[in-house]
Amino acid sequence: MKQYKRLPTHIGIIPDGNRRWARCNGLNKEEGYAYGIEPGFTLYQECLKLGIKEMTLYGFTQDNTKRPSVQTKAFQKACVDSVLRLVKEDAELLVMGNTKSPLFPPELLPYTKRVTLGKGLMKINFLVNYGWDWDLNYSLQSDSSKKTVAQGIASADISRMDLIIRWGGRRRLSGFLPVQSIYSDFYVIDAMWPEFSVEHLYEALEWYQNQDITLGG
Amino acid sequence: MKQYKRLPTHIGIIPDGNRRWARCNGLNKEEGYAYGIEPGFTLYQECLKLGIKEMTLYGFTQDNTKRPSVQTKAFQKACVDSVLRLVKEDAELLVMGNTKSPLFPPELLPYTKRVTLGKGLMKINFLVNYGWDWDLNYSLQSDSSKKTVAQGIASADISRMDLIIRWGGRRRLSGFLPVQSIYSDFYVIDAMWPEFSVEHLYEALEWYQNQDITLGG
Repeated sequence: MKQYKRLPTHIGIIPDGNRRWARCNGLNKEEGYAYGIEPGFTLYQECLKLGIKEMTLYGFTQDNTKRPSVQTKAFQKACVDSVLRLVKEDAELLVMGNTKSPLFPPELLPYTKRVTLGKGLMKINFLVNYGWDWDLNYSLQSDSSKKTVAQGIASADISRMDLIIRWGGRRRLSGFLPVQSIYSDFYVIDAMWPEFSVEHLYEALEWYQNQDITLGG
Repeated sequence: MKQYKRLPTHIGIIPDGNRRWARCNGLNKEEGYAYGIEPGFTLYQECLKLGIKEMTLYGFTQDNTKRPSVQTKAFQKACVDSVLRLVKEDAELLVMGNTKSPLFPPELLPYTKRVTLGKGLMKINFLVNYGWDWDLNYSLQSDSSKKTVAQGIASADISRMDLIIRWGGRRRLSGFLPVQSIYSDFYVIDAMWPEFSVEHLYEALEWYQNQDITLGG
């Protein structure tokens, strides 16, 4: 197995490019999302083997739900199917997103408090109907014992991400956990998410091990 | 002059690598900062020629001030010298940062409300003793008419950044305006900031003009 001199504790994943991949492969845009489930599962297994402690997947956002309804339904289903598959594995799972909206899939409500599945082994956070502004604004509603925005956000139970890997070539965060991404190293893979290969992960980890960690200091 | 099919309205600049450049050039680390003033000025002039409407410079942060005092003094001076040089030009200038700390240079206090210099022509925001947490936490203190964190942050007068260019090779935001960087395209230049060349800017703009703008949709 691959050895690294330094591994990230927490990896964030932006699985982008499903629609572009679908179009390039003679499918309708919305058909791409189903091809993103298997890659997520392979990635989870590989990270588990490597000893990664925490992983956050950018499922879908409130911004995304402005897309045509046939696409919204397709990515909602892909997220539900991914989570229900993960439920049979070992993980401490937390589904994070705005549950008060009809766009949040009700099948995932049981996982909106962290649950231990099997032997636990790895923290997995799955963002579903997530919005960066929804997350931040939660700090305005919460009780006054929270002295900072970071303590009061909806996703306060999710730790700082060390490394963010984005598939699909775009070099932007698109609202992915604004507080937890503050100091994250950001690695972009040009391949589309359905084209995922474990080599992409190795490539990102090889780059990451040579970055210095300063936390802005 | 270079022509682009689409220009960013607002560019964010992370001028990193001053210390590494100094070390590679036989200088003490803190001596690098003074070599970052001229590049900033050249960049301002070039952006003005191109018609860029707004530019934000990541001067120094509260995180940075944890460094040895000789370095802190050197980057404080470089920021003061940069602003005082800019004051002779055309700009709508705003210096943004925590003025309640002794680490905020008092010479810059007159510019902490936006001032029009000369003919204005370009909005320039200069972050000085800035902290991402300080910026966000401002929303907890401000009056209750602010309904969202984004409306209540200290830097609410600074608009969304379209493109962020970071010199010095590191692929992270390091706390640079977490709200305004949500949808920003992020371009990294491997050269150190004191090695700035206008070709770096052209390279970033050429890349940027081919990115699609979705704002997460």
